[in-house]
Amino acid sequence: MPWYQLDDPNDPKLDELARQYNLHPLHLEDARSPDESVKVDSSTSYTFAVFKPVSLKPDPDAPSEFLPTFTPIDIFAGKDFLITISDPTCPATREALQRARRDGDDEHPGRLVYLILDTIVDLYFPAIDHFDDRIDDLEDKVFDNPSPEILQSIFAIKRELIDLRRVLVNTRDASLHLQRDPNTIIDADHQPYVRDTYDHIARLLDSVETQRDLLNNTLDIYLSSVANRTNEVMKVLTVLGTIAIPALAISGIYGMNLKGLPFQDSPYGAEWVGGMTILSTILLLYLLRKLKWL
Amino acid sequence: MPWYQLDDPNDPKLDELARQYNLHPLHLEDARSPDESVKVDSSTSYTFAVFKPVSLKPDPDAPSEFLPTFTPIDIFAGKDFLITISDPTCPATREALQRARRDGDDEHPGRLVYLILDTIVDLYFPAIDHFDDRIDDLEDKVFDNPSPEILQSIFAIKRELIDLRRVLVNTRDASLHLQRDPNTIIDADHQPYVRDTYDHIARLLDSVETQRDLLNNTLDIYLSSVANRTNEVMKVLTVLGTIAIPALAISGIYGMNLKGLPFQDSPYGAEWVGGMTILSTILLLYLLRKLKWL
Amino acid sequence: MPWYQLDDPNDPKLDELARQYNLHPLHLEDARSPDESVKVDSSTSYTFAVFKPVSLKPDPDAPSEFLPTFTPIDIFAGKDFLITISDPTCPATREALQRARRDGDDEHPGRLVYLILDTIVDLYFPAIDHFDDRIDDLEDKVFDNPSPEILQSIFAIKRELIDLRRVLVNTRDASLHLQRDPNTIIDADHQPYVRDTYDHIARLLDSVETQRDLLNNTLDIYLSSVANRTNEVMKVLTVLGTIAIPALAISGIYGMNLKGLPFQDSPYGAEWVGGMTILSTILLLYLLRKLKWL
Amino acid sequence: MPWYQLDDPNDPKLDELARQYNLHPLHLEDARSPDESVKVDSSTSYTFAVFKPVSLKPDPDAPSEFLPTFTPIDIFAGKDFLITISDPTCPATREALQRARRDGDDEHPGRLVYLILDTIVDLYFPAIDHFDDRIDDLEDKVFDNPSPEILQSIFAIKRELIDLRRVLVNTRDASLHLQRDPNTIIDADHQPYVRDTYDHIARLLDSVETQRDLLNNTLDIYLSSVANRTNEVMKVLTVLGTIAIPALAISGIYGMNLKGLPFQDSPYGAEWVGGMTILSTILLLYLLRKLKWL
Amino acid sequence: MPWYQLDDPNDPKLDELARQYNLHPLHLEDARSPDESVKVDSSTSYTFAVFKPVSLKPDPDAPSEFLPTFTPIDIFAGKDFLITISDPTCPATREALQRARRDGDDEHPGRLVYLILDTIVDLYFPAIDHFDDRIDDLEDKVFDNPSPEILQSIFAIKRELIDLRRVLVNTRDASLHLQRDPNTIIDADHQPYVRDTYDHIARLLDSVETQRDLLNNTLDIYLSSVANRTNEVMKVLTVLGTIAIPALAISGIYGMNLKGLPFQDSPYGAEWVGGMTILSTILLLYLLRKLKWL
Repeated sequence: MPWYQLDDPNDPKLDELARQYNLHPLHLEDARSPDESVKVDSSTSYTFAVFKPVSLKPDPDAPSEFLPTFTPIDIFAGKDFLITISDPTCPATREALQRARRDGDDEHPGRLVYLILDTIVDLYFPAIDHFDDRIDDLEDKVFDNPSPEILQSIFAIKRELIDLRRVLVNTRDASLHLQRDPNTIIDADHQPYVRDTYDHIARLLDSVETQRDLLNNTLDIYLSSVANRTNEVMKVLTVLGTIAIPALAISGIYGMNLKGLPFQDSPYGAEWVGGMTILSTILLLYLLRKLKWL
Repeated sequence: MPWYQLDDPNDPKLDELARQYNLHPLHLEDARSPDESVKVDSSTSYTFAVFKPVSLKPDPDAPSEFLPTFTPIDIFAGKDFLITISDPTCPATREALQRARRDGDDEHPGRLVYLILDTIVDLYFPAIDHFDDRIDDLEDKVFDNPSPEILQSIFAIKRELIDLRRVLVNTRDASLHLQRDPNTIIDADHQPYVRDTYDHIARLLDSVETQRDLLNNTLDIYLSSVANRTNEVMKVLTVLGTIAIPALAISGIYGMNLKGLPFQDSPYGAEWVGGMTILSTILLLYLLRKLKWL
Repeated sequence: MPWYQLDDPNDPKLDELARQYNLHPLHLEDARSPDESVKVDSSTSYTFAVFKPVSLKPDPDAPSEFLPTFTPIDIFAGKDFLITISDPTCPATREALQRARRDGDDEHPGRLVYLILDTIVDLYFPAIDHFDDRIDDLEDKVFDNPSPEILQSIFAIKRELIDLRRVLVNTRDASLHLQRDPNTIIDADHQPYVRDTYDHIARLLDSVETQRDLLNNTLDIYLSSVANRTNEVMKVLTVLGTIAIPALAISGIYGMNLKGLPFQDSPYGAEWVGGMTILSTILLLYLLRKLKWL
Repeated sequence: MPWYQLDDPNDPKLDELARQYNLHPLHLEDARSPDESVKVDSSTSYTFAVFKPVSLKPDPDAPSEFLPTFTPIDIFAGKDFLITISDPTCPATREALQRARRDGDDEHPGRLVYLILDTIVDLYFPAIDHFDDRIDDLEDKVFDNPSPEILQSIFAIKRELIDLRRVLVNTRDASLHLQRDPNTIIDADHQPYVRDTYDHIARLLDSVETQRDLLNNTLDIYLSSVANRTNEVMKVLTVLGTIAIPALAISGIYGMNLKGLPFQDSPYGAEWVGGMTILSTILLLYLLRKLKWL
Repeated sequence: MPWYQLDDPNDPKLDELARQYNLHPLHLEDARSPDESVKVDSSTSYTFAVFKPVSLKPDPDAPSEFLPTFTPIDIFAGKDFLITISDPTCPATREALQRARRDGDDEHPGRLVYLILDTIVDLYFPAIDHFDDRIDDLEDKVFDNPSPEILQSIFAIKRELIDLRRVLVNTRDASLHLQRDPNTIIDADHQPYVRDTYDHIARLLDSVETQRDLLNNTLDIYLSSVANRTNEVMKVLTVLGTIAIPALAISGIYGMNLKGLPFQDSPYGAEWVGGMTILSTILLLYLLRKLKWL
């Protein structure tokens, strides 16, 4: 059984194969569209599948961070031919194709499709773990120091999870299609395996949902920490104000050019007035605490 | 097969055609209603469809911005006639009709309906891209400078997305109707094409959902940035208060008309007291930082 | 065919009719309950329907505002009789009954029920438009001046929309019942008309959902505007504090009864010190802006 | 037909009846569990039902308030026997059993079950009305005076609504079970009555949903009122600060021990400087208002 | 019937059993995966089940607190063999296996599976009660003293509830599978028991939902309490500012080196000015309260 691997959907070789194997023009159009989405479409003569393996690439803005990136792979799997179109520089696709070549055999194109799908799904797990680590890290940091950088990270991960979730939901639907479609290329022997892959995707989606919940928690923690800190800062301001007011008021009084102020002419004036100031400050602080205002 | 194109649903020609082809009065009423909504309704003799192509028109308030606007097109497609009613000034409708005229043929009214629908759906993509650009732009701005104008833009886009989503949901239901209805005008050959269009609409709706999520993120960023800034401003106020208090208190003390203040009569009084003030300010700042209040 | 119109469900005439036409006691109980809800219930011998037409009545608290009010109408429609019970002072019910009398005929009680339902549904549109106007109005106001009155209006409309939505959902279910029930009084000819009414209700519910979204937007705008304003006021306070501090500190210093202060005995002391104060104020403002604290 | 009424599920008489009528051990276990939940379970020989009537008991913390409390009633209804287990001190259960004894008859255990369920459902309405009154009351208070007590009441009612909703949802499912189950004890004649009760429960649940919406509104009003008040208090602080600053600055200047201040030696110095102070305060307030900062 | 109990899925004995009883490689892989999830998978020859009993272990960070921990148990139940794989140190698993050994019998592997599942489900109730206690405790504390520690506890419980909910949902699906699957190992006699267990899980999930609602309430209370306190602190600051301003302004005025101030040379100057100060302070406070600013 021939297996054609093309590196680029715009390769004219694809048009030739399309004529030879009678590929549907809508499928060619999909394969060549820059924003194709994950899907499986089965006709009587062949199955057309698009998957989006994930790989972690260093973030250009922060080289110590990794960004999940999706590189599409297109598969045309007929009874007696297999065409795969994928960027050969993507490590996830490379691994999927290698495993299919090693463990599959020519007589079962359905098995090859399963092996590729299964490898792709297995490679989502490290991406999910990567998110887990980053969210744990954010949760640890957010209580100690709710900085705007954490906020930016929360929203960046939210955005990436939105993308990942979309790919996973479509992959789940595609794997369901491989189980249910009467024209499916997967034979009865391999149906339990595809079902198992489906369960894995369901578990991945479960994890993504949990991570969204955790991120929302982290955001709530951030916001309540900021509210808390504003409250703390206000209290400091109030305590400082309270400490300052008697001193300012009393020193203002004795700074007046008036006659008849007590202790004005006493040689221990400074001591008397100083004591009075300290006493009234303590009294005021005590009063505020008593009234539960501080 | 005759194809009647009317520019205005109130054209009396439509009543004539209604009599000739036995059009249902409820359909006429729909076509003439100012706020008709997207739908497909199939009877045994013909299919009535309303679509709402989108076009980007410059915003009268901000000429550099574009607003998505919807102009309805009504289609009555029988086995042996086609009536289209559309505003000829709308570029999207014009393009849809031109493509139908160029690529369709008279024998297949179903194909004509498909071509019009497909063009209309394809033209939603630039509108979605336009929103993508605007949201990206807002996200970039909101971290640097959370101004009320950004807030206004967020809510304006939210409002437009609500409208767009409504049109897309109805278009999706309409295209499903074209696939499922036993009276549908779409023949078996063209069913895969309509299914493909359905997939495109589903992807568009997916994008709209993602954009709503992203807008909510942007709003959260805005609100948390404002909370952050209030917090920052409070801290500045507290630092300023802290710096000022010892100076005010000490200068207040030495401004009192009392006897017995230390250094009062020393020729280096100013230096002593100045030093004391600076020292106590530093001490207070250090204390606040130590207590993690700042 | 006799048509009995009663103004009050407690009219003893109703008991008489109940005996004559064998009306179910639960239906009588419903008709007489003060808080009956919209429903359709079909038995083999007749159909019992409750609808709630809306009319806009002036708000007693704000005579320029209109409040949607619901007045129930009960219908018992058998093959050969029609009983309607409604408050004759309600303009919506009056209009519905007049149209049924004008356009209906005695042979088709199903047509009469349809005509009443259709008129009632049509009269929801002005109520929805009324809400649209009020929400637009609130949106315009909330950006310029987020006052507590706007907040009160938002919550008042929210409350009214909750009521309206409940009535519409029940009316939609009732109209579905008229289409699906095997005992339905609506004959095949009139089914497309009831389906059309169902579509209208679906569109009304769509509008209510949109209005709820828009109201939530308005509430978010309100809250973020208030947060913004607090932030602005804080900044003003900080600017004022910043302007005041050098003046207070320096005048405090020169108010001390100490010896050795610079310029103390210079004849141009006031000018020197004034200049120094202004300079340090400008410097402090410049510093704060440089550190992006203001 | 014997009707056994037990006051306590732990009565040994129940074990005797269980042997006699062959009751399932799981049902006995349920009846004796302290936190049994509402349900209906039909076997071929009898129907086991648990309902939870509500009664309003004075709140021990606030005797003028009433708290809804649920007291379970267990029913074993066979073709030729009825066992009810209920706390005789609960007024709602007492009323339900009295009505069943008065209006039911021995030949129809299904009718007895219906009568008990219907009375229990009718008695939920006053509880709902009670919540309506309390929420209206809170709404009136929250605009005038958003105190923490109102917050506590909002959350207390939320908690009670969560409980009530859970009981109602289970009761709705139980009444659906009485309609649908092939082993149901309700005969065809009484099915419309059970359906009517089902409608009542649906309406009750509707009301609970509405009340949750209204409570969330009230909470939003509370929070926005607090935000508003903080904003107001900030403004007062700013106005006070603005009024004080010129007075403080100018009096500070003239308190300096410097030579060369204008009006220093003029006999009308106080008047000149006083006038200057008032003028600059007015100017500052005018400037702030002009810049829309206040 | 042999019952093999393995303490570790990596025991080579398992491979031997797999060969003997023809276990599916995917099931072995699941049993050995470190993050297997709850499931039931029935083949024609045996049923594979994974459950996750909960046990409360002391929190290493706070020894007085207990953390729910999940220890998986794997079950292979054929017609004539039972293999269980579980960590023998987990008390919940131990209890489940003991009860199965005591109450089950060798002829019914389905009964053994039921007994294990039922014990596991019963042991979730104390965990739920534990959460109930902690949430009640938090609710009591949050009104009196909304500290960041409470916030941390709220989010910690939220996180644990997310985990617990996931396990419960999967267990519910697994128990449904045991009822519905045509290959199920549960015979007709034990179906009511599994259904009863299913009801228990549904009630547990209900409780988890309620607890999530209550936690969200507690979070709302926390946030509104913090907002309230900020508001209170602001008011204290404003009252202090109000009290201080007249004293500062008047003492500033009389501190000026000017001529012509009233009472400047009066022997009762201090008394006059002091009285004036107190009077204007009272007047200002009265004015603010009159204007409802405080």
